[in-house]
Amino acid sequence: MPTLAPETLSAEFRRCLTAVGFDAAAAVELAGIFLDNTLAGVPSHGVNRFPRFIAQVRAGHVDPTAQPERGLSLGALERWSGNGGAGPLAARRMMTRATELAGTHGVGVVALANTNHWMRGGTFAYEAAERGFFAICWTNTIALMPPWGAVTPTIGNNPLVVAVPGEPVTLVDMAMSLYSYGALERQRLAGRQLEADGGYDLDGHLTRDPAAIEASRRLLPAGLWKGSSLAIVLDMAAALMSGGLATVAITEDRPEESLISQVFLAVDLGRLVDSAERDATLARIRDHITGSTPVDPARPVRLPGHELAERIARQRRDGIEVDDAIWARIRAL
Amino acid sequence: MPTLAPETLSAEFRRCLTAVGFDAAAAVELAGIFLDNTLAGVPSHGVNRFPRFIAQVRAGHVDPTAQPERGLSLGALERWSGNGGAGPLAARRMMTRATELAGTHGVGVVALANTNHWMRGGTFAYEAAERGFFAICWTNTIALMPPWGAVTPTIGNNPLVVAVPGEPVTLVDMAMSLYSYGALERQRLAGRQLEADGGYDLDGHLTRDPAAIEASRRLLPAGLWKGSSLAIVLDMAAALMSGGLATVAITEDRPEESLISQVFLAVDLGRLVDSAERDATLARIRDHITGSTPVDPARPVRLPGHELAERIARQRRDGIEVDDAIWARIRAL
Repeated sequence: MPTLAPETLSAEFRRCLTAVGFDAAAAVELAGIFLDNTLAGVPSHGVNRFPRFIAQVRAGHVDPTAQPERGLSLGALERWSGNGGAGPLAARRMMTRATELAGTHGVGVVALANTNHWMRGGTFAYEAAERGFFAICWTNTIALMPPWGAVTPTIGNNPLVVAVPGEPVTLVDMAMSLYSYGALERQRLAGRQLEADGGYDLDGHLTRDPAAIEASRRLLPAGLWKGSSLAIVLDMAAALMSGGLATVAITEDRPEESLISQVFLAVDLGRLVDSAERDATLARIRDHITGSTPVDPARPVRLPGHELAERIARQRRDGIEVDDAIWARIRAL
Repeated sequence: MPTLAPETLSAEFRRCLTAVGFDAAAAVELAGIFLDNTLAGVPSHGVNRFPRFIAQVRAGHVDPTAQPERGLSLGALERWSGNGGAGPLAARRMMTRATELAGTHGVGVVALANTNHWMRGGTFAYEAAERGFFAICWTNTIALMPPWGAVTPTIGNNPLVVAVPGEPVTLVDMAMSLYSYGALERQRLAGRQLEADGGYDLDGHLTRDPAAIEASRRLLPAGLWKGSSLAIVLDMAAALMSGGLATVAITEDRPEESLISQVFLAVDLGRLVDSAERDATLARIRDHITGSTPVDPARPVRLPGHELAERIARQRRDGIEVDDAIWARIRAL
């Protein structure tokens, strides 16, 4: 498994992106996002996903020249179309637009139709929170999870992202399945079993074996009926607000997952609370939670996203371990 | 167990509410909400909770004469204080205010400090959805759940509610624990075990026995680390946006759960999509999901909230079964 410098990886990303039709600025930005996702510890939506992204551009499912376009505006809420372009570029621009609307109105919402996979939604909400905004975003997906009580996949796992500004940013980036397919892949590649039952095997038994769940495609919703229910309303809201496709249409009408729907929401928290008061409130919350008695004394309780900066810094310093087969595929693109 | 006509129940509620200081209009409205929650199949936050609510008014934790008061306004987002009044009355008024802001700006947000338990948040989002608004609301609570990886309760289970307009309204009303204490009470009173492990017993073993979890107070978060993480950011956001108390302050600074923080969000969906197109999109989503192959052929897959109207109509027609002890307590109030 080669250990690569961040710049080596992003240079390869840029080379491939330029070759499939992204202009220089878009290639730099997209390469940066794929690198950031990898540094953040989510290679399933960074380096490991990169060859598939390039294949989707080549197959015509992602248009490297498309730009998002504004539709209906209601003031603090706008509808946009991604016009089938690169999902991560549209998502960053739409989250930025939501923060601009929030700057004017206190809260801003952008509903985005006809976009593509954003890779890691946490990237965009985290950036908004770094600039002082409370941020929420969610996406629908192709049908890939059975609703609670069913064996056939008819709902998406529709990731929901929530970011709270502070030092550090608190970040939740959760698929509505207990494990995303990306998380299953990470555990399988690492040769690990899951920490909790993540779905069913082909015989219909609950299992912690990631490969068995990848085979059955019977993911367990996070919180059972709760994640299933939340996935359903997030899909309805994304499709109705954006005027774009719901999971059923993405699944039945498209050749593969494309032209999906997303929602971006920002609140201008800096106009509601000064940063000293904000940080005092957050410090008290953090101290209370990290003061909980842990189940395992070797594993103190942490807050979501608080480990991120350290993980990024460590990989920047020590390099990024990349799977041999994936690195060979990227080199051959 | 007596079976009561809805009017019998609400007349008793009105009598008690008037006796503790609510004026006639407030007593009628609050009695209606306690009745609605009971009819909706959530007696834990309807009739069963009513004696405790009256006790909280008598103890001075809920001020029957308080009115919500507006603070800072940023346009589409407003801060309000509940001034320590009845939570359900403030919540209905704040959700209505969020829909008014959405009517002007497309989206509206109200962040509410110094309020009290809203009983059942689904009531207010459902009402907004019946009037054509996509609605989200959430609340923090006193610390009552251990964060993932801990044994001591330092976070709330901070219910999140999402409602999508349509025929019928789709409604998710979920505590961030897999089971709320209200749900544990319902199952215990019915003499049932839980459908899934809901927490730990006093010996630290996962259990489906509701009474064992009520004893240990080790609720399991919905989706394990996911529900735990989401509870944390919802609390941070409610406290920072409203300027009110976070779970830690409610827990450490107050004699019992009071002066909590809530957020209400509405989107004016009727200005984004006409109702025929909306209903066609929702019908396709519903048919796809209900067409899933069920695990148990006797239990077809349903959408969240779609059973509500039938349940309410059945109880209105057949009467409401009320626990003997609870009815005796209410009669004696």
